[in-house]
Amino acid sequence: MSTEKEKELAAKAAIKYIEDGMTIGLGTGSTAAHMITALAEEVAKGLNIVGIPSSESTKKLALANGIPLTDFANISAIDINIDGTDEFDPYLQLIKGGGGALLREKILAFNSKLNIIIADCHKQVSRLGKFKLPIETIPFATPILIKKLRIMNLHPILREKDNSPFITDEGNYILDLDITHISNVAQLENTLKQLPGIVETGLFLDIADIVIIGRGDTTEVFKR
Amino acid sequence: MSTEKEKELAAKAAIKYIEDGMTIGLGTGSTAAHMITALAEEVAKGLNIVGIPSSESTKKLALANGIPLTDFANISAIDINIDGTDEFDPYLQLIKGGGGALLREKILAFNSKLNIIIADCHKQVSRLGKFKLPIETIPFATPILIKKLRIMNLHPILREKDNSPFITDEGNYILDLDITHISNVAQLENTLKQLPGIVETGLFLDIADIVIIGRGDTTEVFKR
Repeated sequence: MSTEKEKELAAKAAIKYIEDGMTIGLGTGSTAAHMITALAEEVAKGLNIVGIPSSESTKKLALANGIPLTDFANISAIDINIDGTDEFDPYLQLIKGGGGALLREKILAFNSKLNIIIADCHKQVSRLGKFKLPIETIPFATPILIKKLRIMNLHPILREKDNSPFITDEGNYILDLDITHISNVAQLENTLKQLPGIVETGLFLDIADIVIIGRGDTTEVFKR
Repeated sequence: MSTEKEKELAAKAAIKYIEDGMTIGLGTGSTAAHMITALAEEVAKGLNIVGIPSSESTKKLALANGIPLTDFANISAIDINIDGTDEFDPYLQLIKGGGGALLREKILAFNSKLNIIIADCHKQVSRLGKFKLPIETIPFATPILIKKLRIMNLHPILREKDNSPFITDEGNYILDLDITHISNVAQLENTLKQLPGIVETGLFLDIADIVIIGRGDTTEVFKR
């Protein structure tokens, strides 16, 4: 399980940026889970932080590990947000949303002073798109969006779970798009955000400040 | 009730654009309700159309009036969409969402070949903003959006109903914004759509093809 070891190494390296008194955004997914375990150990030793979770599953995990939580009603910004990614390119642009939590993850990231992305080395790509781009859509609009995105050559696939549409924490659907032929992802982001019924996309552009990956027994750090 | 008469006149004038076999977008609100009544009369006389409703309340009203309904799974576009507005300016730009149905209304409008807006004459303004701009927001993000929109001088007010947040058909919140000092609404629309947690805005720009208003005993027609 060397990939798991790499995720754990990256997670532990990210934890070192955290200082007493900070508000920490807690990502979702298998790499973020390593971070939550490592953070819980520091909290048990006396580190004084509050977390804000990016999904119902992360909320449960954090509470089970004794990490105190807050929400946006009580804070005006997040000091450090730590989350995983499905892909990152040389410009530290990301595709996220494989776990289906992209909406809250993006809300957290957008409202954080520092965004640290943690990953195993297999998430590093020379260009985005090997991983399909998830977008979150309003169920009412999803059938017409599928038709429109097909015309745009994005080959939308409705994500399913147990033979039914996968439902996000906000009650929406996920479409997975093929963007292998797209050269300007910023333009794609803008186009998608203009389509009524698309709530959010998994393109995290100009958001990651630091990417830490585990590679074998070491970590590598990329900064914007 | 001369305003009601004006709404009815506009609604009846809009119905005349409808032809046999068309798919019709059915708006939400008091003016759209007149249109549904008038359309039901034509259906009773033999007009063959299907409607697609922009809200749960319109769906109920249409079914109660015997209008056959469809959804986006069964069609690829709407022939004519008929809806009310809260304001329209000389460029036929609109503020909508007073009834809280702006998301589905915008999805319908965006996917229609022809958009007809019906209103009483009091909805005509020289510039947008006397009516507060409604935006639909994800509950999770709403507290931080309120803080951000305050800094942007947009004076957000969380819409309430019976002392609790008003809940849209999609389970989201509505914030009403003061945009009286905004001169470039297209730029505002773009800025708002980039903020994660804002699902949709009530700015309907470059969408209305025809605006029909009742004024006293007559109607006036504005075309793009």
